[in-house]
Amino acid sequence: KRDCNGADKEEPIGSASGSATAAAEAVAVEPAKEDSAADAGKSSGYSGGNRSKRGNSGRALCGIDLAFCSDQKAGMLEAHSLGYAFVCLPLFHPRNVVRTGADVGGHADQEEEEGQRHRQLDQLRLLPATRPDHLVIDSEDWTRFVVGKISAWIRCDSSWEAERLQSLAALRQELSWAAHIGLVACLIDLPDGGRVSNLARALLAFHRAERSAPLMWVRVPMAAEQVGDDGDIASNDPWLWWHRLCRLCDLILGQLGVALEVTADLPGPAAVQRWLAEPVKALVLPTSLFLTNQSGYPVLSKAHQALLMKFFRLQLQVIITGSCRHEKGIEYYQQYINWLYSRRSTDLYSSQGKGYEDTLQDPLQPLADNLHSATYQVFEMDPYKYRAYREAVRQALVEMVPDSEAESRLVTIAVLGAGRGPLVQECLIAGRQSGRRIRVFAVEKNGNAVNTLLNRSLSEWPDSVVVLPTDMRQLKPTDLQADIFVSELLGSFGDNELSPECLDGAMHCLAEGGVSIPMSYTSYLAPMHSSTVYKEVTRQRDPEKPYYTFLETPYVVNLVNSELLAPPQPVFTFRHPAESAGPDGRPASNERYIELTYRAERTGVLHGFAGYFDSRLYGSVSMSILPEDHSPDLFSWFPLVFPLHYPVPVKCGDAITVAMWRVVSATAVWYEWALLAPVVLPIHNAGGRSFTINLY
Amino acid sequence: KRDCNGADKEEPIGSASGSATAAAEAVAVEPAKEDSAADAGKSSGYSGGNRSKRGNSGRALCGIDLAFCSDQKAGMLEAHSLGYAFVCLPLFHPRNVVRTGADVGGHADQEEEEGQRHRQLDQLRLLPATRPDHLVIDSEDWTRFVVGKISAWIRCDSSWEAERLQSLAALRQELSWAAHIGLVACLIDLPDGGRVSNLARALLAFHRAERSAPLMWVRVPMAAEQVGDDGDIASNDPWLWWHRLCRLCDLILGQLGVALEVTADLPGPAAVQRWLAEPVKALVLPTSLFLTNQSGYPVLSKAHQALLMKFFRLQLQVIITGSCRHEKGIEYYQQYINWLYSRRSTDLYSSQGKGYEDTLQDPLQPLADNLHSATYQVFEMDPYKYRAYREAVRQALVEMVPDSEAESRLVTIAVLGAGRGPLVQECLIAGRQSGRRIRVFAVEKNGNAVNTLLNRSLSEWPDSVVVLPTDMRQLKPTDLQADIFVSELLGSFGDNELSPECLDGAMHCLAEGGVSIPMSYTSYLAPMHSSTVYKEVTRQRDPEKPYYTFLETPYVVNLVNSELLAPPQPVFTFRHPAESAGPDGRPASNERYIELTYRAERTGVLHGFAGYFDSRLYGSVSMSILPEDHSPDLFSWFPLVFPLHYPVPVKCGDAITVAMWRVVSATAVWYEWALLAPVVLPIHNAGGRSFTINLY
Repeated sequence: KRDCNGADKEEPIGSASGSATAAAEAVAVEPAKEDSAADAGKSSGYSGGNRSKRGNSGRALCGIDLAFCSDQKAGMLEAHSLGYAFVCLPLFHPRNVVRTGADVGGHADQEEEEGQRHRQLDQLRLLPATRPDHLVIDSEDWTRFVVGKISAWIRCDSSWEAERLQSLAALRQELSWAAHIGLVACLIDLPDGGRVSNLARALLAFHRAERSAPLMWVRVPMAAEQVGDDGDIASNDPWLWWHRLCRLCDLILGQLGVALEVTADLPGPAAVQRWLAEPVKALVLPTSLFLTNQSGYPVLSKAHQALLMKFFRLQLQVIITGSCRHEKGIEYYQQYINWLYSRRSTDLYSSQGKGYEDTLQDPLQPLADNLHSATYQVFEMDPYKYRAYREAVRQALVEMVPDSEAESRLVTIAVLGAGRGPLVQECLIAGRQSGRRIRVFAVEKNGNAVNTLLNRSLSEWPDSVVVLPTDMRQLKPTDLQADIFVSELLGSFGDNELSPECLDGAMHCLAEGGVSIPMSYTSYLAPMHSSTVYKEVTRQRDPEKPYYTFLETPYVVNLVNSELLAPPQPVFTFRHPAESAGPDGRPASNERYIELTYRAERTGVLHGFAGYFDSRLYGSVSMSILPEDHSPDLFSWFPLVFPLHYPVPVKCGDAITVAMWRVVSATAVWYEWALLAPVVLPIHNAGGRSFTINLY
Repeated sequence: KRDCNGADKEEPIGSASGSATAAAEAVAVEPAKEDSAADAGKSSGYSGGNRSKRGNSGRALCGIDLAFCSDQKAGMLEAHSLGYAFVCLPLFHPRNVVRTGADVGGHADQEEEEGQRHRQLDQLRLLPATRPDHLVIDSEDWTRFVVGKISAWIRCDSSWEAERLQSLAALRQELSWAAHIGLVACLIDLPDGGRVSNLARALLAFHRAERSAPLMWVRVPMAAEQVGDDGDIASNDPWLWWHRLCRLCDLILGQLGVALEVTADLPGPAAVQRWLAEPVKALVLPTSLFLTNQSGYPVLSKAHQALLMKFFRLQLQVIITGSCRHEKGIEYYQQYINWLYSRRSTDLYSSQGKGYEDTLQDPLQPLADNLHSATYQVFEMDPYKYRAYREAVRQALVEMVPDSEAESRLVTIAVLGAGRGPLVQECLIAGRQSGRRIRVFAVEKNGNAVNTLLNRSLSEWPDSVVVLPTDMRQLKPTDLQADIFVSELLGSFGDNELSPECLDGAMHCLAEGGVSIPMSYTSYLAPMHSSTVYKEVTRQRDPEKPYYTFLETPYVVNLVNSELLAPPQPVFTFRHPAESAGPDGRPASNERYIELTYRAERTGVLHGFAGYFDSRLYGSVSMSILPEDHSPDLFSWFPLVFPLHYPVPVKCGDAITVAMWRVVSATAVWYEWALLAPVVLPIHNAGGRSFTINLY
C-alpha cells in the first residue's frame, strides 16, 4: 500500500503563482470541472474561435517560441495577452558570436580548407553579446515567463577543433547569462548523431560552478531524418543520443529534461512508448504540423491528437514554434491545445494518484508502525476493494452453509487487522445478503483503531461484533475458532506487508475446514524502463547511509512516466491455509527463491523491476493491480519498484534474467534481488542490509 | 612517479611467522640468493632427491590436499615434516550430512523420482557433524597450517529444491565451524555451468553475520570439460562462472580468491592470460599431471612448467592434490615445485616493485608537496634514466656547439627541478664527455633539497654550478637565459605531474634557439582487465567522501595481476618549446581532448584504463614505460590507472571507446574521462570533483 501524504512537484514555467500548490492547479484544473468541459467539447466538436475559453489563464500548458523578434519585451507581452503562458527567447543575438583569443590560434591552415560556415565563424564580433532589449525585462518576468534559447550555431562536439572550442566558450557564456538573469529553464538543441561528450562535460562543469543553474530542456526530434550513411543504427535514433547524454550527465540528471519535437511523420508505437518513459518536460509543436479545419482554424491530425493525449499523462508543457500559418491568428494554436487538453480522459485511479506521479514512497511497515486515521480513510474510499470483499464473504457463507442450515448454523468470522472496521461492515452486509447467521470477531493491534472499533461496535453493531484488541499472532486458540478469516494485509507486491507471517501466526484459530479470504495471492515482476524513476531514486541518496542503501530499497510508485520492457511474470504465491502445513497449521517456511527470464520486447534502458500482485479472495472474486488486468477503480495500491544499482541498456530480443529471494529472519522479512542477464549485477539488499520489513 | 612507502600484503597460509614482514620473506626469499640458486639449478638440471633443499622451510609456497585421512592431526604433522607449508582438510566427515527438519518436508513425491544421489541424501545423519580428530588440533595450528575444505556434495544452486535447501544449511554450518576454529581460508568448489546465485547469497549472508570469516578460495578448473549441450558458450567457460560469482558478491570481493585447478589439457594463451588478471591465490596441481623423470622423480611437462612460471609472478601458493603416484614419495612434488619457483626469472623492475604489486598509490603532487629525501634516493637509483639524460645532454651539446667552438663557447644549462642534484651531476659528466664548456643553473623550489644542492655545489661542483632556490615559474628573464633546459618532471602519464605548466612557466628563460630535454612526451592509454585492481579500488572507499571519489581517482599501480584488452594508443603529446606558441613562448592552451576507439582483442572485463608515457629526451635518446617498448631497467614509474565506476564485460571484437580530457583551471589541472562504448558511463571526475593536480 501507499502512503497518503502529498508530494511536492516541480513548478511549471508560466504558472500564475509562485507557490507549488497553485502551480499544480495551474497545470491541471480539478478533474470534475475538466470532465464536464470535456463532455461539452465532445458533443460539439472543436470548431475554434470559442473566445470564452481563452481566459483559462490559470493553465500553464502552452508557450510559444519567438524566433525572430526585434523587441523581446513587446513580443513577450503580446504572447501573454494572446493566452500563452510563457515564451522562448534567444539569449544572444546571432550577430554576437563570442570569440576568445586562445580559441582561434594556429588553425589558419584548417580554416582555408573549410567553406561557408567557416567564414561565418571567422567574423570576429565584439561584446556585448546579449541583446539590448534584454535590459528592459524585469527579473520576475524572466523567471516566470521566459525559457532561454541557447544559440543554435553552437556545436560543442564539432570535429573541427576551432568550432568546438568556440562553441564551448559561447555555451559557457550563454548559460552564465541565463543564470544571471534568473531563468528557470533553457532550451538547447541536442546535436544530431549522438556525439555529445563535450556538451555533457560543459553542462556538468557549469552546474558544478553555478548553484542556481537553470534546468536544461534538451530539444530532441521524436524521430531523426536520415543522418549518417555509416550503417550505424545508433546515429539515426534520437532516443539513443538522449540516452548517451543522460548517462554522461548522471550526476545532474535532475537538471535535464526533454523538449520533444513532434515530427510530421510519427515514429512507430514502440518508439513513442520509449519517449513516454523519459522525463519529457515539453512537447515542441511546429506550426507546420497543424491542418486547417473547415472554419479556418488550426487543428491537428487524428494521429497527432492521439499522440498528444498520450503525453498529456505526463506533467508537461507545450511549445508552439514556427511562423503563424493560419489567418485567424497565432493565438488559436494555444487555444486548440488547451481544448485538446481539456478533452483528455481521466479515471478514478489517476485522479486519486494525482500529485504522486512517479514519486517514490517508502512502503508501509504495517507491523512496526501504526497507521494514521487519514491513511485508513483514504483506503476505505476504494470502491472496488470493499465490494469485492463483501461478495467474497457472501459466496463463502453460501457455500459453507446450505440453505437448510441457514437458520441453525452460526458462522464465526474473524476479521484480522480490522482497522477502523470497513471489513467488519462488509461482513455484516454479506451476512444479511446471504441470509446466513454470523458472529464477527474484529482483531486489531493498533490501539487507536481499536477505539474506533469499540465505538462502532456499541453504536452501529450491537451484539454482532466482538472486538479483540491484540496482535493476531498473539491470539490464543481459546479466544476464537473461526470458520472464515477475512484480512486485508496485502501490499503492492502481495506478501510484502507480511500477510503470510500474520496469517500463519493466527492459523491455530482457524477451525478445521475453515477458509481464508483472501485464499491466495501472487506477486509479479516486470522489467521496467523509467528515466524519471531512476532520477528520483538517485535523489534519495543520503550521505549518512552507505552509498548503496537508496539503490536497493523498494519504493511504492505511481508509475506514469515509464514503460515495461516485457510483460509481468508471477513470482511468489502464498495460499491460506498452506497446502503443505505442519501440525500447527504453519507452512514449513515462507522463504522463497525464483529466477525469472524475460525476452525484451523493445529496446530501452532497464532501470529496475516493477512489482504487482493479484489475489483470489474467494470463489470467482479476485483483485489485481497488474497493468493488463487491473481491477476497475481499485486505487489502494501503486506498484512496488525494485531499483537497480545502475541503468542497464537492453536491446529488443535480449534475455533479461533476475533472481529474487524472500528471506525471513527471526525479526524481519526482506527481499534480495540480482540481475543475471544481460549483465550480472551485485546481489541487491544482501542480508537485508538496506531494507527490511520488520516483524515487530 | 610512484610513492616509495611500503605496502602491507596479505599473509600466506603456512608462513613461518605471524608478522607480515616475515610472511613476505617467506613467500619470496631475496632475489639475489634466488638467482644464484636458479643458476645452480639451471646448470645441473632437475634430477630430484636433492635433500639439502628440503629445508627451505621459510617458504610458504606449497601445500597438500589431504583427501582421505583418518587422523587429521597425524596427517598434518606428517605433511609438515615432508616440507609442506600447509594442508587442506575436509571440515566435515562426508558421513555427517546435515539435515534440518524444515528442509525436507513436502518433497516425498520428488524424492521418488530421483535416483542414486537422492537416496544418499535421504539417509538422515545425526550430529555431531564435525570430525572427532578436529578436537585434538590446537587453535594456532588451525590458523597457521590448515585450509578447510567445504564438502563437495554441497550444491547450493541445485535445481532440486530439497538439495538446494539442504546444501545451503550445510554450507552455513561448515562456514560457521571454519570461523569458529579460526581458519584463515576455506576451499570451496565453484559449481559447473555458472549457476551461482544461491552460493553467492550464502557467502554474502555469512560474511555479513561473521566478522572474522575465513577467506574463500574458490576452486575453479582452468578449462571446463564439455558441460552443457545447450549451445550456450558461457556454460563451458569457467572464467565466466567465476566472473558471475564476483559480480554477485561485489561487496565481499576482498574475501574471494581463485584456487585455479590446472588441467592436463591447457587452454589457449588468451584464456591463460585472462586468469592472470584474476586474484589467483592458489594453483591446484593434481598429482596426475606429473610425469616421471629418468631418476623416477615427479616432474611437469614443459607446457606446465611454463604455465607455473607465468603464475609465479602473482603472490600465490600451490596445492598438490590426489594420491601419490610416484614411488619416491609424496614429498618430491613439493620439492619439485619449490625448485621450479627458485628458477623463475626476475629483473630489476620487478625486484624494485616487490611489495607494490597491484597496490594503489596516489600520484605525487609535485607542486603542492615537497618530496622527501628517501623518495629522491629511490629514484636516483634508476640506472636507465640518468644514463639516458647524460647521453641526451651530450648529444645536444655536440650538436649545438661545433668542435671548432668547443673552447670558445660557454653553454648555459638550466636544470629545472634539480632535486638533490642527480641531473646536475649528469650534465657535468656530459660536459666533460662532449668536450664542451658548460655552466649549470640548478633551479629548485624545495627548500630542503636546496640545502643538499648548496652543499654539493660547494664540495663537489665548485665554480661550475649556480643554485637558484626558486620555483621555475618565478624565474625572471634576467636570472638566466639558458641554451638547454633539462628537467625530469614527467609522471606515469607523461604530463600528469604538470611538466607542461612548469616548463611553460620558465620558457621566457630559454634563449632563442634553445632546446628542452625532454623535447617531447606522449601519454598512452589501454583498456585494462584486472579484478585485483578493481578490488583494491573498492577498498579505497571513504565514508567521509562522496561515493564516487575513490572510483574516479587515478592511481599509480605496479600492474602485475592484470591484462590489457587491446594495445595502448597515444593520447596527448606535448613539445617544448611548443610548436604554436604565443609571443611569450607559451602555447595557447595545455587543455586537451581526444576520443580513442579500441577493438577488444580478447573477452574479459574492463575495469579501467592503464596509462603510460614515452618521451624523446634528445636526438636518438628516449624513455618509455610502454609494456611492449619498456626501457630496460627503468623502474622510476609504474603505470597510472584510471578506474571506472563499475566493471564492464567486454567481448572479443567489441569496440571500446573512451573520451579523455585534460582540463586546466587557474589553480589546478585534472583529467576527466568517460567510457562511450561498449556502454556509456558517466563522465568521471567531472569538474575535477574527485581529483586534481594542484598548480600551487
